[in-house]
Amino acid sequence: MDVVDERVKADSGPDWLRGLCETVGDERVSTSEEVRREFGTDRWHAAAMPEAVVRATTRDEVAATLRFANEHSIPVTTRGAGVGYVGGCVPVRGGILLSVKKMDRILAIQPDDGVAIVEPGVILGDLQEAVREIGWYYPPDPASLGECSVGGTIATNAGGPRCVKYGVTRHYVLGLEVVLPDGRILETGGRCHKNKTGLDLIGMFVGSEGLLGVITRATLRLIPHPEARAMLTATFADFEMAAAAVQAILHHGWQPSGLEITDGFTLQAAREYLGPGKLPEGDAHLIVELDGRRDTVLQDLARLRERVDSLGALTVEEARDKTACEAIWRLRREFSYSLRATGLTKLNEDIVVPRSRLVDLVRFARQLEKDTGIAVACFGHAGDGNIHTNLMVKDYETDPAEKAKADAALDLLFRWVIANDGQITGEHGVGIAKKPWFRDAVGDVSFEVHRQLKAALDPKGILNPGKFLE
Amino acid sequence: MDVVDERVKADSGPDWLRGLCETVGDERVSTSEEVRREFGTDRWHAAAMPEAVVRATTRDEVAATLRFANEHSIPVTTRGAGVGYVGGCVPVRGGILLSVKKMDRILAIQPDDGVAIVEPGVILGDLQEAVREIGWYYPPDPASLGECSVGGTIATNAGGPRCVKYGVTRHYVLGLEVVLPDGRILETGGRCHKNKTGLDLIGMFVGSEGLLGVITRATLRLIPHPEARAMLTATFADFEMAAAAVQAILHHGWQPSGLEITDGFTLQAAREYLGPGKLPEGDAHLIVELDGRRDTVLQDLARLRERVDSLGALTVEEARDKTACEAIWRLRREFSYSLRATGLTKLNEDIVVPRSRLVDLVRFARQLEKDTGIAVACFGHAGDGNIHTNLMVKDYETDPAEKAKADAALDLLFRWVIANDGQITGEHGVGIAKKPWFRDAVGDVSFEVHRQLKAALDPKGILNPGKFLE
Repeated sequence: MDVVDERVKADSGPDWLRGLCETVGDERVSTSEEVRREFGTDRWHAAAMPEAVVRATTRDEVAATLRFANEHSIPVTTRGAGVGYVGGCVPVRGGILLSVKKMDRILAIQPDDGVAIVEPGVILGDLQEAVREIGWYYPPDPASLGECSVGGTIATNAGGPRCVKYGVTRHYVLGLEVVLPDGRILETGGRCHKNKTGLDLIGMFVGSEGLLGVITRATLRLIPHPEARAMLTATFADFEMAAAAVQAILHHGWQPSGLEITDGFTLQAAREYLGPGKLPEGDAHLIVELDGRRDTVLQDLARLRERVDSLGALTVEEARDKTACEAIWRLRREFSYSLRATGLTKLNEDIVVPRSRLVDLVRFARQLEKDTGIAVACFGHAGDGNIHTNLMVKDYETDPAEKAKADAALDLLFRWVIANDGQITGEHGVGIAKKPWFRDAVGDVSFEVHRQLKAALDPKGILNPGKFLE
Repeated sequence: MDVVDERVKADSGPDWLRGLCETVGDERVSTSEEVRREFGTDRWHAAAMPEAVVRATTRDEVAATLRFANEHSIPVTTRGAGVGYVGGCVPVRGGILLSVKKMDRILAIQPDDGVAIVEPGVILGDLQEAVREIGWYYPPDPASLGECSVGGTIATNAGGPRCVKYGVTRHYVLGLEVVLPDGRILETGGRCHKNKTGLDLIGMFVGSEGLLGVITRATLRLIPHPEARAMLTATFADFEMAAAAVQAILHHGWQPSGLEITDGFTLQAAREYLGPGKLPEGDAHLIVELDGRRDTVLQDLARLRERVDSLGALTVEEARDKTACEAIWRLRREFSYSLRATGLTKLNEDIVVPRSRLVDLVRFARQLEKDTGIAVACFGHAGDGNIHTNLMVKDYETDPAEKAKADAALDLLFRWVIANDGQITGEHGVGIAKKPWFRDAVGDVSFEVHRQLKAALDPKGILNPGKFLE
């Protein structure tokens, strides 16, 4: 890509373009169609063209951009690595797309304080590897960790399979530097592991999906890396038995570091994708991971196995070392790939249900399948009730009738979730994808409070407009 | 106490009293001096008389009280069990003291969903016992757990020794019902263990010290209770070695469920209080707790002991069963009592330092002692850096000169904390006690943002006025 070609032509573009270039520097601004297109979408299927892209390299460039945008009431949509699943960083109102991807330095890793200090564009997996090398651990582990930015995980309060033991991103953010919509620099929290000084401003920005400010630096909590892990997988004759096993494991005082469940539809797709013999018999699949000390984790695993054997599993397999554990997690990822390999569009909805409702959810999914003709694959984080519910749709992108049918099925799914004490998103965020159900999900008073807070911090509404608060 | 005597005399009290009684019911309102005095203080040394006390028994009574107060711009200070340490529930501007202590029902404990649903007046220890009986665990464990209310722990985002592994109260609040200053009822979150639906309104209220709303119901996350615990205590020749041991334990991949350090001054007081032979030699004391499975936790303890032995401990003792562990925690509590037994006033400041600064803190404390003549006892949660730093003051309550000297020493302490990347409060909150240092601690922009958020939710400023945002 030729940098010169990306530079702004002063004669084209919106009327504020010259001012923006003067503010932040020509070399940071691009109006080339190619760049604007690249920065106009994420992993969801929406796309919108920003009028200009700013690729910031410093906090001060972010602040200058926001001050300018605020003064001229120009929409600003912030973007990390752009791998979101809900259209959260799609600039639906045009304006400025502010990329912080180039702010990608790990500024410090300090185990004596149990902290890492990073810029928002750092790739999550790179951070995890860097801290792992010195024996430390940053637990949040969304599936996209190899390509998502830490800033994006903070903006969405990202989770992952190990949240069941270790909690979500919010639990690991100790300090933030945030540029507010008017360009002020807010520093909140710091490197201490406990802090009750005032309101929880960190919580205000973690998960705020770019609506309240732009995170330019984060101080993250590290914990000692567990010495060893061990896992087992089990298959069951039906989903009900696997869900009962989840309850039994927890009721007997186990605190697994992973507890994943997969339904029959997904297993069937995986068997077709992987070929015969790769997956044992059974219509439901369970993964349980333990972590702890090298000396004792296998003893714990043996006791856990006794428990699972007693719960009527058809097959149980143990993973007793790192290689075997990694093979299980790889298999788990294959479940996703095998759904994609069906050739259908996979509408992945990260809904959450109360843990006692796992079976109800899968029964509802089967009914939805019957009623709509759209296959539904359920698998995910059983301990949290955070089950990725995938509608497998034919010709979603190309056939408006199929799309309408799928959208109606999604509506049925989300309405069922809301009526059954569930949550419409556990990890991905609301973005545009779940905007139609947001107000019903949170209720009128919560919606008003959201808007009051938004108006307090971003009175002109420049940050990420068009999203779930409108 | 005679209920009739506590009732309002319509002819006395503030001019809004009649209206308040009509709104919420005579039987809920008291203006008796005895009651107002009882509800005018907490464990800190400030006191202020409210003009009326409302003892609410339902959410609707809370809402009616706030609607009325908001309409008439009457200050409202909310109070749980009143065991705070910073004057947070002291009604410094008079008005209405709203007690939620009578809203003390555990509404549900549902392990299949991993939740407990409680009213705010439930005593924390009662909740913990109730869930423990069925094998479940609610980890937040401030020292006051036998008498503090769950609502109070939410309002202060309470911690305790096990936060080092399990996190603070915020990590266990899944849902809240909150009455807003204008009487609207906000329900936010629910019984799901993961939730990314919108902004983190729960975080907004957890730790908000009564400034933004009144919590009338909470849905709390329960986790499986660890099957077993085991502990060791170690003494060291000096604090530096104990602090180095803290680092070494964490660097070797241990995730203790408790990691407590105690300095020489405290140990000396404990030796005098407990008599000879109760505490082994050494000028610093370390407690390490592990939890896990019954079969393996003692093996883990043996390996931990090897590690600690290698770090130059003078003495190491193991606690291998529940009784022995409880004896250690009892000893830990005796450290507090022994300070009280000195007859001095104990100004307990729950400051936090980056974990690498534990030694710096204790050196500063020794210097402060020399400079001011006030003894300083440091002990607390080493893993978090949350060290309770106790200034031991003679005649604090009675001698204005001694009080002035102690307050000057506190000022030196907090300024040192702020200058050394610390936090002025880790668990107790800001309240009135730390108000003088709040703005310096958070910085001007954060202070402004605090006020913007306060103004958005409580435009008339009726809730807990006179505290740290003014």
